[in-house]
Amino acid sequence: MPQLRGSLDGLVFEKSDPEAIAARDDIECVFLAVPHGVAAEYAGPIARSGKQVIDCSADFRISDPAVYEEYYGQQHPDTDVLSQAVYVLPEIAKDGWMDASVFACPGCYPTSILVPLFPLISAKIIGTSGIVANSFSGVSGAGKQPSAAFAYCEVNESARAYGIPKHRHLSEIEEQLGQAGQGEVVLQFNPHLAPMNRGIITTITVPSSGASIEDLYYIWENWYGKRPYVHILPMDTRPESKYTIDTNRIDISAVKDERTGNFVITSAEDNLMKGLAGQAIQIMNLWQGWDETEGLTHA
Amino acid sequence: MPQLRGSLDGLVFEKSDPEAIAARDDIECVFLAVPHGVAAEYAGPIARSGKQVIDCSADFRISDPAVYEEYYGQQHPDTDVLSQAVYVLPEIAKDGWMDASVFACPGCYPTSILVPLFPLISAKIIGTSGIVANSFSGVSGAGKQPSAAFAYCEVNESARAYGIPKHRHLSEIEEQLGQAGQGEVVLQFNPHLAPMNRGIITTITVPSSGASIEDLYYIWENWYGKRPYVHILPMDTRPESKYTIDTNRIDISAVKDERTGNFVITSAEDNLMKGLAGQAIQIMNLWQGWDETEGLTHA
Amino acid sequence: MPQLRGSLDGLVFEKSDPEAIAARDDIECVFLAVPHGVAAEYAGPIARSGKQVIDCSADFRISDPAVYEEYYGQQHPDTDVLSQAVYVLPEIAKDGWMDASVFACPGCYPTSILVPLFPLISAKIIGTSGIVANSFSGVSGAGKQPSAAFAYCEVNESARAYGIPKHRHLSEIEEQLGQAGQGEVVLQFNPHLAPMNRGIITTITVPSSGASIEDLYYIWENWYGKRPYVHILPMDTRPESKYTIDTNRIDISAVKDERTGNFVITSAEDNLMKGLAGQAIQIMNLWQGWDETEGLTHA
Amino acid sequence: MPQLRGSLDGLVFEKSDPEAIAARDDIECVFLAVPHGVAAEYAGPIARSGKQVIDCSADFRISDPAVYEEYYGQQHPDTDVLSQAVYVLPEIAKDGWMDASVFACPGCYPTSILVPLFPLISAKIIGTSGIVANSFSGVSGAGKQPSAAFAYCEVNESARAYGIPKHRHLSEIEEQLGQAGQGEVVLQFNPHLAPMNRGIITTITVPSSGASIEDLYYIWENWYGKRPYVHILPMDTRPESKYTIDTNRIDISAVKDERTGNFVITSAEDNLMKGLAGQAIQIMNLWQGWDETEGLTHA
Repeated sequence: MPQLRGSLDGLVFEKSDPEAIAARDDIECVFLAVPHGVAAEYAGPIARSGKQVIDCSADFRISDPAVYEEYYGQQHPDTDVLSQAVYVLPEIAKDGWMDASVFACPGCYPTSILVPLFPLISAKIIGTSGIVANSFSGVSGAGKQPSAAFAYCEVNESARAYGIPKHRHLSEIEEQLGQAGQGEVVLQFNPHLAPMNRGIITTITVPSSGASIEDLYYIWENWYGKRPYVHILPMDTRPESKYTIDTNRIDISAVKDERTGNFVITSAEDNLMKGLAGQAIQIMNLWQGWDETEGLTHA
Repeated sequence: MPQLRGSLDGLVFEKSDPEAIAARDDIECVFLAVPHGVAAEYAGPIARSGKQVIDCSADFRISDPAVYEEYYGQQHPDTDVLSQAVYVLPEIAKDGWMDASVFACPGCYPTSILVPLFPLISAKIIGTSGIVANSFSGVSGAGKQPSAAFAYCEVNESARAYGIPKHRHLSEIEEQLGQAGQGEVVLQFNPHLAPMNRGIITTITVPSSGASIEDLYYIWENWYGKRPYVHILPMDTRPESKYTIDTNRIDISAVKDERTGNFVITSAEDNLMKGLAGQAIQIMNLWQGWDETEGLTHA
Repeated sequence: MPQLRGSLDGLVFEKSDPEAIAARDDIECVFLAVPHGVAAEYAGPIARSGKQVIDCSADFRISDPAVYEEYYGQQHPDTDVLSQAVYVLPEIAKDGWMDASVFACPGCYPTSILVPLFPLISAKIIGTSGIVANSFSGVSGAGKQPSAAFAYCEVNESARAYGIPKHRHLSEIEEQLGQAGQGEVVLQFNPHLAPMNRGIITTITVPSSGASIEDLYYIWENWYGKRPYVHILPMDTRPESKYTIDTNRIDISAVKDERTGNFVITSAEDNLMKGLAGQAIQIMNLWQGWDETEGLTHA
Repeated sequence: MPQLRGSLDGLVFEKSDPEAIAARDDIECVFLAVPHGVAAEYAGPIARSGKQVIDCSADFRISDPAVYEEYYGQQHPDTDVLSQAVYVLPEIAKDGWMDASVFACPGCYPTSILVPLFPLISAKIIGTSGIVANSFSGVSGAGKQPSAAFAYCEVNESARAYGIPKHRHLSEIEEQLGQAGQGEVVLQFNPHLAPMNRGIITTITVPSSGASIEDLYYIWENWYGKRPYVHILPMDTRPESKYTIDTNRIDISAVKDERTGNFVITSAEDNLMKGLAGQAIQIMNLWQGWDETEGLTHA
């Protein structure tokens, strides 16, 4: 990371080994940033040694191993640890989440959809069928593996949908929304690739079930009014991804289309911050009882 | 246009004047590329002088002056000429369109939505409620006026929704779909700005009403199989805007999501070609009885 | 600044007025970020009231009013204050600079050229004629005024030279290099616009006068080895602008071309940080006796 | 090439084989677009069979096999054919070039430097030492191999120098300039990577040897005034790469810096057109006696 040159003096990079990490007694909390499948191999020994795991992979985001297998094409590597894990999107996590030994940190797409929808479904002011979410993500969401598909000239000056109709992240989005209290939720999720390094915007169309836009804002304000990382923008303002870059913030707003009866909800976030790494820090802060914004300078 | 330097020898730029154009007898056909409101001022005298008008503005795209006034905030300047105009998206234009004296050429968003949906609604294999279209457009769609909102550093590396919930182009989209034969169509249309010069992609979610994906492709093949500028891509391929740049082509494909029962339809085009200027040339070619692709080199 | 929403609680924006600022006794230091010409109107009353001025305009960068007039096309507005000002590029500023009442903070192009060249000219290991500097700057260097020239579609996917042959910044570059001790320096400076938001790279070709590349690195190490914001990269590594973004760092490296006898020196920096705003903070830190990196998180 | 879908009906792709191509009697001219080293393996059999070869690789650009070996790190594969080849930059190629059996088509960097400099060196109005050329190229210049260095997020929003101090293309540039008639020319060539798909700009600083800018333009006009693909822009206009995209044109202009006595010459071209593929077509047109612009629509 040449951009951090000079900031990392004293930082030691070591070959990692689950057992060796588990055996150390100078470690309280371990962040896992490895591929799914691999994460569970680390989480097991580490969690069993009594250390807290904050996992950034998909391995602990879905509680049902059968759904995991359906979406990820492999058996879950450690269902024992899975049963001790909890999904932690801090602003909507269920009471008691801090007692779990593994925290599953959600990624960019689910965060951009769950933050705006979860309170509305909990409050029963929107329906649970007919929801359509379209997301546009920057290229860093695709990771660092060199591939022809993400070469500069392939991605630059173009846009495309992909992962339709059954993107992996659907499974966790639907599980979480289902837990909001109104039974099964089935969602249409259409992800797209945008020619930019970072940032994600999501536009959600959802039948209003007769609720007014004021009802919607009232519920959001109630839920998020005091949370530092969810900013509720006015009805006439659409979030822009650029304003969230390098911050741990998600910006949301909504408008009601009286012609169709739909709410149109828009959100924006930095896929590398609130969309993963920043959120993982936020989880640690809350778990430790520290200020939620510690180490995350911009609100 | 410095990029055309050397290609335009002999081309004469003149101050334009509707009456003077109307008076000339060496002109058969006039393309209007001026703002709405202004177009109607030109179209009147020119059409009355017996010349063909191909208009690229919004002035003749909506047949009902009241709807025009609702969406464009001003009275229609010439309802007499309006009544002699016809909407010409060549692949779906109604029989007899060549007899009209003014051809209204549709723009980028409507083309990207009407081409895939019109045959499906005509064939009654999709419903007319619950349609959600999300478009993602390059910046040239915003025109050439200098403005802070479209300065390089404002647009680059960011994405945002805008024009929600009632974008001007909705009016013509809904009018045309209504004419496909199943009565009123109300659409949720969510446009977005993408950080690229040209190109537009649209993703449409539409309830399948029990039809299969094979039904959908069969209808498309029937309708567009022999048209040079509509390319039907395989179900597992999403159109990419880059492959349409500098062409007059629109690429379309669809997939059925068995979980939601929806078709997810995607289209891509160059907003400056099939999305307007290329389409205007295509209209002239058809009207003249020339080969549809004359002067439009790439298929 | 929507990206700072939530970080600026308590910050008060006021209409500014030089006399009112001068009259306040709760202010020690004033940053001026206004156009040249305007800056001098503020600096006079404020400096005379005993407050320190850190000026980000060109008004105090050139000591000779005649040269200022030649390059900026107007008489210097306040030569009295000019005589109390000093040019502060922290790593090369002359002894005693902290005693001046106005600090002129240099901008992006001069910083990218002066940091690598000043020590080499001081040490007399390069010649002072035949120097050629080519810079490539991101678009934010052009400021925020909306203009057709900096509209997204004009700048995107293109590059061009501009400001040749006599860019305004030449005057201060040549004055500073002249003070390095070998008499007059005349430089060929060719600025270019690059399609990116931030960042600047400069490539300087300079006759080596027989010195070796090791001599050059020895001088740099001696001069900058302990400074946090000048990073000397290995001879086989070229600085990339992306690694400096959001930091106050300038990265430099050099190589000797044995075929031509030239040194080819390359530098990279964030034009908005080390190229101006970050440098202004760095100046305040040094003047106050604080740690040089205070408030400037990345080294 | 999905963007050409529909334009290539009837085009046959075959596994290529030098001997099989050589044996066919329905072929007059073969374009080679393969890596250096490989090109010579094809060119030998094909040229010996009496067919014309237009080669886009480096294999026939350097007449001296020793220089080839120095710059490309391998022995020349076929010095026999090399002796029958000629370097063809159409506007400066030496008389009689059409008699050669292999035409070496130059690439982007050499074209951008040779077109402006060759006539000036021939006319002896500039010196041959102290020339400094800085080029700034789009990413397509790096080819199609997937690599981490050219992944979208690595290239986007950044700029860097590379290939300093001895880029491979130097060898052919210096050979050609040496043939302009004033003996050996040694050049400082500094290439850079720009965050854009296509296009290249080059800025050349060259001592004027007392000549005036009018002298320079007079020579250019004389040499290029009637050539369709070299556009001479006014002294106060710098070429922009965007205006050359999709054309076979190179735009050039120059200004004299009276302070330094240097000419500053700038050029722009599309690296994929005049910078290679377009130029290869132009060569075929001239060799066949066809109009130079055949198949190359924009001038």
